[in-house]
Formats: sequence, structure tokens, C-alpha cells
Amino acid sequence: VSDSSRTFDVAVVGGGVIGLAVAWRTAQRGLSVVVLERGELGAGTSHVAAGMLAPIAEAVPTEQPLLRLGLASVGMYPAFVAELAEAAGRDPGYLECGTLMIARDRDEAEALERQLAIRQELGLPVARLRASEARALEPALAPGLRLALEIPGDHVIDPRLLVPALGEALSRTGGEVRTGTEVASVIVDGDHVRGVALASDGAEIDAGQVVIAAGVWSGAIDGVPDGARVPLHPVKGQIMRLHDPAGPGLLTRVLRMQGGYVAPRGDGRYVLGATMEERGFDTTVTAGAVFELLRDAIELLPGLGELVIDELSAGLRPATPDNAPAIGPTAVGGLHWAAGHYRGGILLAPITASIVVAGLVGEPLPEPAAAADPGRFAGVTVDV
Amino acid sequence: VSDSSRTFDVAVVGGGVIGLAVAWRTAQRGLSVVVLERGELGAGTSHVAAGMLAPIAEAVPTEQPLLRLGLASVGMYPAFVAELAEAAGRDPGYLECGTLMIARDRDEAEALERQLAIRQELGLPVARLRASEARALEPALAPGLRLALEIPGDHVIDPRLLVPALGEALSRTGGEVRTGTEVASVIVDGDHVRGVALASDGAEIDAGQVVIAAGVWSGAIDGVPDGARVPLHPVKGQIMRLHDPAGPGLLTRVLRMQGGYVAPRGDGRYVLGATMEERGFDTTVTAGAVFELLRDAIELLPGLGELVIDELSAGLRPATPDNAPAIGPTAVGGLHWAAGHYRGGILLAPITASIVVAGLVGEPLPEPAAAADPGRFAGVTVDV
Repeated sequence: VSDSSRTFDVAVVGGGVIGLAVAWRTAQRGLSVVVLERGELGAGTSHVAAGMLAPIAEAVPTEQPLLRLGLASVGMYPAFVAELAEAAGRDPGYLECGTLMIARDRDEAEALERQLAIRQELGLPVARLRASEARALEPALAPGLRLALEIPGDHVIDPRLLVPALGEALSRTGGEVRTGTEVASVIVDGDHVRGVALASDGAEIDAGQVVIAAGVWSGAIDGVPDGARVPLHPVKGQIMRLHDPAGPGLLTRVLRMQGGYVAPRGDGRYVLGATMEERGFDTTVTAGAVFELLRDAIELLPGLGELVIDELSAGLRPATPDNAPAIGPTAVGGLHWAAGHYRGGILLAPITASIVVAGLVGEPLPEPAAAADPGRFAGVTVDV
Repeated sequence: VSDSSRTFDVAVVGGGVIGLAVAWRTAQRGLSVVVLERGELGAGTSHVAAGMLAPIAEAVPTEQPLLRLGLASVGMYPAFVAELAEAAGRDPGYLECGTLMIARDRDEAEALERQLAIRQELGLPVARLRASEARALEPALAPGLRLALEIPGDHVIDPRLLVPALGEALSRTGGEVRTGTEVASVIVDGDHVRGVALASDGAEIDAGQVVIAAGVWSGAIDGVPDGARVPLHPVKGQIMRLHDPAGPGLLTRVLRMQGGYVAPRGDGRYVLGATMEERGFDTTVTAGAVFELLRDAIELLPGLGELVIDELSAGLRPATPDNAPAIGPTAVGGLHWAAGHYRGGILLAPITASIVVAGLVGEPLPEPAAAADPGRFAGVTVDV
């Protein structure tokens, strides 16, 4: 079953922020592209994600290639969202707010001093603030805090605005979106991909190239040859959305503390997250997790107790064995990965799109791509 | 505007547990009755209520007439729900589980000893349990508890099962229900009621007698003469519904502690409540309230942290100046009250129905009715 309405240069499997960013950038290069999304656009992890753009706050010294990827992507964000807003005619929800990392007691303060030293060695822009200085910036902080780091370059974006902006930009650029369309497998002929088969009726969609961008659900797509597989496992995150009936102003920067963060949207809405749990594909919201998130946040920001809870939810981060994503071409001709972004799917969307598009059109991959080479997992298996 | 399809012996304003219980009992006496409910049946406070049947745990020494009303009603419950199950052909959700009141520290233990003494003086069935005895009954209780009271006669019912059971029983007994039908005012001719007027189009429904059973929203009904008014104000309660993915067994009795309670439904579902807040008609769910409910419950019952949160909600208790309800006839002929039940609407449904029906048919009111005489508020006004 194959006709011209089902023939594309590129099929992108997955309509979250990653798949949509890849597809938009692909369409801009003049390729015909279709996004195949089993649910609604952005209904997977993108719907739950806080949208932290925080490579510096989240820097791990043993993961410097990932840090470079994140720094490159956060640096692309201002131009990316400006172009997106223009292309889509709508606000993608980007907020340049900066971040404070907070220590509440002596143990946390010592840990934060080490975090500061690591970032200073790496030449990252971080300022040490005394408690009084932090409270001058954010007067709603509890008096008891011990120490803070200011990270002026770590920001946040609202994925629930980013998704429809990307979808609109993609459509306006000539790309096609098919929601409610689940892909069962990629179809490989010899050493080259030639399309995908749908789960509903087995119908095939012909595509010269295929990009797998289905987050943690990418692992369920059949037909990927051994040498091109990427081991993925879900890391559950529980998260809470709130708003202030009194309007904006309680908090203007992202707060990060041991065990979580509070991110402002700039309009009186806030996101409080997030747990890190190995629970398979479970997305229930549990009493203990909600209690701990609220406890840590209210201790640091007592005024948060007055906020209205709008939503409790849980999402699944797509984790790889080394916490870095799989982005770019594989040993199978025409088969590309854009998945495994773990905590950084929203952050890494612009750089992911650049790397994947370079692979699709046969240009050299941008420098930080090496850390995300899907080929590094050839032969690796994991139990999920 | 008045025709035979709009003529009833009795119109009950409000389709919550109280209004439905009154209407069912009224229909059983051969009177034609209609329930007028502005939303869906039980969509007001009944939908949010935990369903505590706990006159002994909630006994207040200064409110002994109210205690007698509660004891009378809890005593009616077994026969009430048995008859209802038969009449409706469905389970009304009654659970004879008993209650433990728990003290977690020395201060709470001293307070609980006083609670015990009060109940013993009143001759109420309460047993003092050492911590080890309480944990033998409920092994999931935290080791740190100090003292417990066992109240074998305080139970719980699921209002979300009780409402449809009452609705079905009412229909099968020939009563009529009109949902989506908001009453704007009662119509009084001289010194006797003759019906109600609807908010939507001003249409009148003729009724020889009218029962106001609209909970805290009863205060918004116009046309009630001065001498028959009842001052009502809302007391907000935030509450949480959870379930145990592992099934029933974590807790078999109602737990009551300072600041809240955990009530089992017997099937792995639980209700955790409830705040007491004076916030007007606000029904938002706030971060601080959810935090405090979870904190107190998890401290006492650590396994509650593993439960899945199904719902957060807030309801409005209809409070009167003396915390007792307004039940029965007024100085206006044919105008009856069944509102102002505060924390006890579910508990007091059977006795309320008995009192109101006695008034409707002109029989002597049952003994504890005096505490609920609406006439005691004649001339009383309150700011809401």
C-alpha cells in the first residue's frame, strides 16, 4: 500500500518538541517532511516538561560533552525563538529570567560551594551571593537560606506554548503533520531505510529518510537494525503547575534547590518539579512525591503555600546509559536519531534540529554532535 | 406561568444528599415531590464531602443538642442504608469501619486524654488504646504515635455512591428530579408559601410546601420572609482522594488526628481531609493546604506516601452561627428548612429527612429536632 500522498523526503516519528523542531528546520531546507504522532502534538513528555534551559545549573563535571551540547543550544535559543515567533505568528513562551541555586543549611551550602568551584573552573558565568544579596533579588525567599549562586544565563520556556508555535511554523513552511498516527516500525531495504509502517493498518509511508524522535517510546519502534539501536529507559518526573491569584511577582527567577526547582512563567503561573524515579512507564502522581516537592519549595519560598494548584502530572524522561542523547545519522542509510534527551529535551531542541538537518542534507555535523553520536550504542543493550 | 406539570405537593430546592433524602422519604409518604437542582445531582458539597459518620469523634461538649442529633442519625444509618439499597437496587457505599483518634506527641496525648474524659462523662462508647494496641489494630500506623482512642461506632459512607442511590430510590418511589434547574426565589402568598420561581425564565413551579435544602447556596434564594431566614456562611474544606495500587489493606478504620483524617473506602481508595477555612465561596486548591494535609497524614501513616492521588478538591460547608443545622418548619406556612449542616450533612441526612417529613405531614417532630429549629435564627443577621 503506497501512493504519492504517502511519499516524503523525510518522515519524523514523534510530534513532541524535538520532532517538531527537526521537521520545521527540515522543511525550511526545501525537503518534503511529515511528522507522524500517535497522539496529539506534544502530548508526551513535552506536555509535562517544565522547560528548563539550564545547562549551567545542571552541569555535571563528568559529562562535559553534554555540557557543551547544552551551552551551544542555550546560545541558539534567542535567535531560535525570535525566528519561530516570526514564522508561527505566535509567542513560543521563552522567558529570559536567570536562575538562583539555593542552599538552605550548612551541608547544602558546602555542596553549593563545590558546585561553584566546578563551574568557575569550567569558566561558566556564575556569581556567589550571600543570603542577603539573594533576598534582595528575590524578596519572597525565606530568611533562613544560607547561600545562593546566580546563573544569569539559565532560563526557561513554556513547552505548552513552544509546541503549538513549532506546529504552526512547520505547517506554514509546508510540512505536514499527522496526529493519531502511530508508527509500528521502520522499513529497511538492504542497508537503507525506505519508510515506516503504521500500527493501525500496516499501511506504509514512503520516505527517503526517517528520523526517530519519539522520546522514550522510540524503543518500541520495530525494524531498527541492531547496529542502529539506542537503549532507552524512562525516568519518571512528577511535577506541579500552580498560579498566584494575586498575579505575577512572587518570584522572577528560576529557583533551584536540593530536590527540585520552582520556575516562573512570568505571568503568575509557576511550575514546581520534579522527582527522578525509576518506575518503568508508570505516570501516576503519588502522595509522597507531591508532599516532598511542596515541603522543599515552601520551606524556601513560604509564599508558595498561597498558590493555587492547577495540575499534578508525571512525565517520562528518555534516558540513555550515559545520559547524553542520540542525535544524527546511523550506520543505516537514511535512518537518523533525535531521542534520548533525558532531562534536556527542551533545552537541546535547537541544536538537535541543526545536527539532524545537517545529517539529512549531507552537510558536516556541527561540532558538539560527537557527544550525541547514536553509533556509540552499537552493541549496547539494557534491561528496561 | 403555571400548569399541571408544574404542580406538586412539595418542591425540594437542592439535589444534594440532604435534598434527595428528604424527597425520597417524602415520596414514600405518598406526596408528589420534585427536586430542583441547579447542577447535577450531588454536584455541590455532597460531591466533595468525605462522608464521615462521626458524631462521637466530633463531639463538642458545648454542643450537646447537636451531639444528640448526630447520635440519633448515626443510629438510624444501618436501617436507612439497608432500605435504600433495597429501594434503589444499588450500593449506597456505607462502611462500618470504626474510628481511631490518634495523638502523635505528648501535647496531643494530653488533649486526647481530655477528649476521652469528656466522652466518658457523656457515656459515649470510647476505648483508650496504648500505642501498641492501636498498632495491633492498624499495623501501618507509624511507631511514633503516643495514644489512641477507639470509637467503634463512628463510620463512613461514600457520598458519591449515596447520591445516585438516593436519586434512584427517589425516582422509583415516584419522585421527580429536575437537574439544571436553578431556583431564584420562593413565592409566598400572605403567610403561606405557594411555590418557587426559576432563575432561567422566571417560570413558577406550584407547590403547597417548599423545602430549602440547597446547602450554603440556600442563602441566595430570594423571597424568604424575614422571620424564616437562616444565616449561612461557607467554611471551605480542601480534600484529597487517593487509591492504593496495591489494593485495600493499608488502613481499615478511619484515622483522625489533629488537623485531619484519613478515611478508607474499603476497596483501596482513601479520602484525606480536610481544611477548615473562612474564604467565602472560594473553592480553589492551594499548595499550603495540600502540603499540610499530606504532612500530617504521612507522619502518622507513612505508607500513605505510596498512594496515587486521584483528585484534589474543595467544598463549602454550610455553617450557621451556632454550628447546628436548620431543619423543619418555619413561621411561614409550608416553608421548611433542611440546610446549615456544616460538617454533618452526610451524617444528619436520615434524621433530617425524618424531621422534615414529620413537618410536611403534620406529625410531631422527633425529639432531637428542637436543636435544629430554624426559628431560633429569627432576627439574627450575619455578614458573609
